[in-house]
Amino acid sequence: MPQLSISRRTRSTPFTSRLSDAGVKAYTVYNHTLLATVFRSLEEDYHHLCSFVQVWDVSCERQIQIQGNDANKLVQWMTPRDISKAQSDQCFYLPLCDQHGKLMNDPVGIKIDEQTWWLSISDSDILLWAKGLAYGKDLDVTVTEPDVGPIAIQGPLADTLMARVFGDVVNDIRFFRYKRLPYQGHEFIVARSGWSKQGGYEVYIDDASLGQALWDELFEKGEDLHVGPGSPNLIERIESGLMSFGNDMDYRHTPLECGLDKFCNLDSDIDSMSLPALRAQRESGIEQRLVGIVAEDITHQPNTVQLMVDDQEVGEVTSHIMSAKYFAWIAFAFIDQKTLYDLSDSQKTLTIRTEQGDFEGRISELPFNFDQLGLTSKTA
Amino acid sequence: MPQLSISRRTRSTPFTSRLSDAGVKAYTVYNHTLLATVFRSLEEDYHHLCSFVQVWDVSCERQIQIQGNDANKLVQWMTPRDISKAQSDQCFYLPLCDQHGKLMNDPVGIKIDEQTWWLSISDSDILLWAKGLAYGKDLDVTVTEPDVGPIAIQGPLADTLMARVFGDVVNDIRFFRYKRLPYQGHEFIVARSGWSKQGGYEVYIDDASLGQALWDELFEKGEDLHVGPGSPNLIERIESGLMSFGNDMDYRHTPLECGLDKFCNLDSDIDSMSLPALRAQRESGIEQRLVGIVAEDITHQPNTVQLMVDDQEVGEVTSHIMSAKYFAWIAFAFIDQKTLYDLSDSQKTLTIRTEQGDFEGRISELPFNFDQLGLTSKTA
Repeated sequence: MPQLSISRRTRSTPFTSRLSDAGVKAYTVYNHTLLATVFRSLEEDYHHLCSFVQVWDVSCERQIQIQGNDANKLVQWMTPRDISKAQSDQCFYLPLCDQHGKLMNDPVGIKIDEQTWWLSISDSDILLWAKGLAYGKDLDVTVTEPDVGPIAIQGPLADTLMARVFGDVVNDIRFFRYKRLPYQGHEFIVARSGWSKQGGYEVYIDDASLGQALWDELFEKGEDLHVGPGSPNLIERIESGLMSFGNDMDYRHTPLECGLDKFCNLDSDIDSMSLPALRAQRESGIEQRLVGIVAEDITHQPNTVQLMVDDQEVGEVTSHIMSAKYFAWIAFAFIDQKTLYDLSDSQKTLTIRTEQGDFEGRISELPFNFDQLGLTSKTA
Repeated sequence: MPQLSISRRTRSTPFTSRLSDAGVKAYTVYNHTLLATVFRSLEEDYHHLCSFVQVWDVSCERQIQIQGNDANKLVQWMTPRDISKAQSDQCFYLPLCDQHGKLMNDPVGIKIDEQTWWLSISDSDILLWAKGLAYGKDLDVTVTEPDVGPIAIQGPLADTLMARVFGDVVNDIRFFRYKRLPYQGHEFIVARSGWSKQGGYEVYIDDASLGQALWDELFEKGEDLHVGPGSPNLIERIESGLMSFGNDMDYRHTPLECGLDKFCNLDSDIDSMSLPALRAQRESGIEQRLVGIVAEDITHQPNTVQLMVDDQEVGEVTSHIMSAKYFAWIAFAFIDQKTLYDLSDSQKTLTIRTEQGDFEGRISELPFNFDQLGLTSKTA
């Protein structure tokens, strides 16, 4: 693996020196900001995350703040999801789509108050899109990137650890809801959310030095819980069916092609720029779809992968990894809808062509249903 | 240095495998794309660049294409530089500024034809800003990111090498002009430009396989010229006074604070959204300014740097390095205008506080005038 040259442009966070002290081995760059990817090894990080509790620096999930009389209007314009019933303690997964229905980003949005949204963005400069739309349309909003980024507390022992710091009230937060909880005289937004399926929280850090104090306290109070540093884990997120904007979907794709239909209220009476295009696509049908693939006979991560049916390439793998839980190769891939249809009456299998040879792969809906696929956990 | 985790989101280019074969040691991520930073060592890369010729993969300088009846209108709206006289063989350095006069990016723009601009962007998603502005204002343009990225041929032997590939006609291209030159039946845009002051060209690669053929031919025909792989070099670019968006200036700064006045036509009668704010700033005066700093007594790159006058911090270093040519520490920094003014009647010196101790630093205009500073080259 090559090294990463770090500069001011690849922004550090209030926690970067702590990650460094904790022995971070690799980073990626996300929203012009450092995001750790590996501490021990991908596999060790995975097992630790699934067994104990980790604290993640996900400051790179920058908040784009949209504030003003037209805040709801602008956010609704950007997303095909109906936000008119949004409550102010809810987290909303919001596909953002342009007038062609193409994805621009897929933030979690939280409605701070009647005039303010925070969009916790994936890796594209939604600040610029929102600024352009607002200025072009002369909307009464201010679009900024306040100095706010989350830390995530993830893993099966997250509830225990967080209760020790914030009190039992934290465990009352329902999934994708948030509360404002006091911490040293300050109020942090604490949400039950995070980019794993191991359970946990995200705390929106809007005060760097209090955030550092919180970080240190989480490590102090979690010692007997084996708390450790961590980060979104490639194995865990693929096993859990969590898609990554920029990896699994990008500006070329619509949410309907990515299985995000349930986050698109195409029959709502809302003013969203992507609705006409998405309605038309629903009408005409999609040409490709993001699905899961499982190949149990692959035992080592291949370098090159092609998806073949009758010696014709039928799609493209977007992310893939050896599952640490099922000892099988698992992947996300875009497959031609025609292929999916042709295969639907027979067995849904295709050929995974790798530098190690050809293997049989099975197509699965996302998220994977490993039980239904007949796979059993190889971990304790 | 930590490692970089590479994924589809950190896009590879048509040349990534060649960089890998050439032993690239480190990357950064720029416009969601890999950009090499080191091949041998920063110092060795520097001396090679200043002596011979290098081929750089700068595909990460993505082209944002603005096309349609309102193309000129949109580009003019985004930049305070008057583009009304733009000729179609010119390269334009274009500060892009929002309605507050703040920098959004600083691309080199080329006018492809009367209805088409390419903006060769630095590291922010101008695609999204331009799309937002165009859609919000209902402009008659299409904004896309075509699959075009430059390679750069840089160094004192670039003229020789390029003439061997494109013929002597290539040497007729004037600085910041371009020609369309034939290559294997295709026409490439070839500009005399590039992010070094060692001279050279950029070729806009709009056909990946021909680009790869060109890359290989440049290495074959340049063997006796010691052609080698390279990349924008941190030492060379600071010595040359080349500022980097995201490092030396960002969304918080106006071009007037960065010494980019000459690229802002504040008295022109143009429809540019930043003109009112920039005119007002010219009137009221700027509060900080980007300058150069030289400290000859620093002999090893410090880790921490503070700029002090009378024990008060007076600014912030944005980029710094040990000059390989002058054996001095050189830096870019924002300094309070008041400090600059107070210092103007005495010697322009301040204290550079580092973990190695305090050193005297001299303030310099940018680009550095090393002769005037009394520094002499230590290289042959």
